[in-house]
Amino acid sequence: MHNGTPVTVLGLGLMGGALAEAFLRAGHPTTVWNRTPAKADGLVVRGVMLAPSPGAAIAASPLVVVCVSDYDAVADVLHGPLDGRVVVNLTSGTPSGARELAAEVVRRGGGYLDGGVMAVPEAVGTADAVLAYSGPRPLYDAHASTLGSLGTGLHLGDDPGLAATHEMATLVLMWSMLDGFLNGVAILGPAGVSATAYLPVAQTAIDIVAGWLPGYARQADDGVHPADDGTVDTHLTAMTQVVRESELLGVNSELPRLIRALAERAATAGHGGSGYTALVEQFRKR
Amino acid sequence: MHNGTPVTVLGLGLMGGALAEAFLRAGHPTTVWNRTPAKADGLVVRGVMLAPSPGAAIAASPLVVVCVSDYDAVADVLHGPLDGRVVVNLTSGTPSGARELAAEVVRRGGGYLDGGVMAVPEAVGTADAVLAYSGPRPLYDAHASTLGSLGTGLHLGDDPGLAATHEMATLVLMWSMLDGFLNGVAILGPAGVSATAYLPVAQTAIDIVAGWLPGYARQADDGVHPADDGTVDTHLTAMTQVVRESELLGVNSELPRLIRALAERAATAGHGGSGYTALVEQFRKR
Repeated sequence: MHNGTPVTVLGLGLMGGALAEAFLRAGHPTTVWNRTPAKADGLVVRGVMLAPSPGAAIAASPLVVVCVSDYDAVADVLHGPLDGRVVVNLTSGTPSGARELAAEVVRRGGGYLDGGVMAVPEAVGTADAVLAYSGPRPLYDAHASTLGSLGTGLHLGDDPGLAATHEMATLVLMWSMLDGFLNGVAILGPAGVSATAYLPVAQTAIDIVAGWLPGYARQADDGVHPADDGTVDTHLTAMTQVVRESELLGVNSELPRLIRALAERAATAGHGGSGYTALVEQFRKR
Repeated sequence: MHNGTPVTVLGLGLMGGALAEAFLRAGHPTTVWNRTPAKADGLVVRGVMLAPSPGAAIAASPLVVVCVSDYDAVADVLHGPLDGRVVVNLTSGTPSGARELAAEVVRRGGGYLDGGVMAVPEAVGTADAVLAYSGPRPLYDAHASTLGSLGTGLHLGDDPGLAATHEMATLVLMWSMLDGFLNGVAILGPAGVSATAYLPVAQTAIDIVAGWLPGYARQADDGVHPADDGTVDTHLTAMTQVVRESELLGVNSELPRLIRALAERAATAGHGGSGYTALVEQFRKR
């Protein structure tokens, strides 16, 4: 059923392959290019066109999705004129890099959307996959339906750098969560508790924090930090206890120490009696 | 409807008050004591007994829940004989403190369970509130039904210190998540993105990580760290980019720097090509 808008996917890594696959399943005539053509074999037998060059792949479709290793690789594959083409760059990079690429694509007659895939490759093509885009809203609206084949789309704003800025923010959040989980696993190890046994407790903790975030986000925006669930000073007492106990256990205490240092600075800045979101001021400073 | 097991609650702070309230609603004859008796007024008019001393409150019920400021305060309120009493200590403290209290309560003829409330006070008394207990399993089983009035109970093991150890682990996880979120808010601020606008993206990121944890927990337990969703080296590249961009933006880069330092050490230890869970070895070290 080849009845949708033709699309091109440049780059067939784990994620690029999943993107091409999702377009194919949704009935879009799909053209691909990859540095190593053999990676397209599985797609070609199911009806995908394999182009001999990036230029030929770009010529084949009005919508060109790029998912390669980095922005240098994006610049490498985007050669030639781009008249009437809309480039959707899902490669990870910096906000300034995204803005430069956007300017270059526009200079060469194309339209540019930046984006990030918030999902594992297996989830691409389902509503569970969230794809966050930034760039001119009319351009996004014109292609929202086609891009909907990849997952749930979210438009972050007209500045093409916004997707990369959001990606930086979420990476810090994701690494922090992972490090917080692994640090807990290390704390529980000497007591004979496995990571798997810790899991339900960790998941409960994550649900609790996730439930706080809407209120915390409003507090961070308003700059008002009520001590609804404990003051910075109360947290500091517990933080000091965790640092000391970590040392007694002989496990790494760097993360609890940094957590405490940030809270201590908030207290020194007069926020000892405020709620946790008062720490946002510390993160906003160099 | 006073037909349940009689219970006593010592300490009527925000959480203690919610605990007494939940017992009362579930039909347990409830006795309370608080240093400031006036805090019990709202409960007394609805049928709660206010005891004149901790000893009188302890004498009133076979099950005594303690929720005060710290373990010193627990020791203060638990005077006199405890024959036939089961003390459920929901005060936050250290694993060693819990073990000492357990020994002291047993020495005085009582039984001891330690525990932590994983919920905001408003959720206590509903299934959404998770209460994690540690101490002798038969003791927990004998009182699981009464404690069920407070929320969903979870028995962590026979060692009375386990609840406090789990609390330390979850505190590090919760602070890490909060700091990761606030750091992201700081990164997005200069781009004009509010915390509230960031929220749906942050929540998607949290869901993704929460979905990884069961697999990650198994990897941490098995000491096998496959690079299913990116190697430590790939993460390191992104971490370096986030540190650099944070500096360009003029926001705090301490958390990304620590995140990178831990990953760097994992790579130096030969885990550059491993998955993220290889970092658990760094957290297990002093």
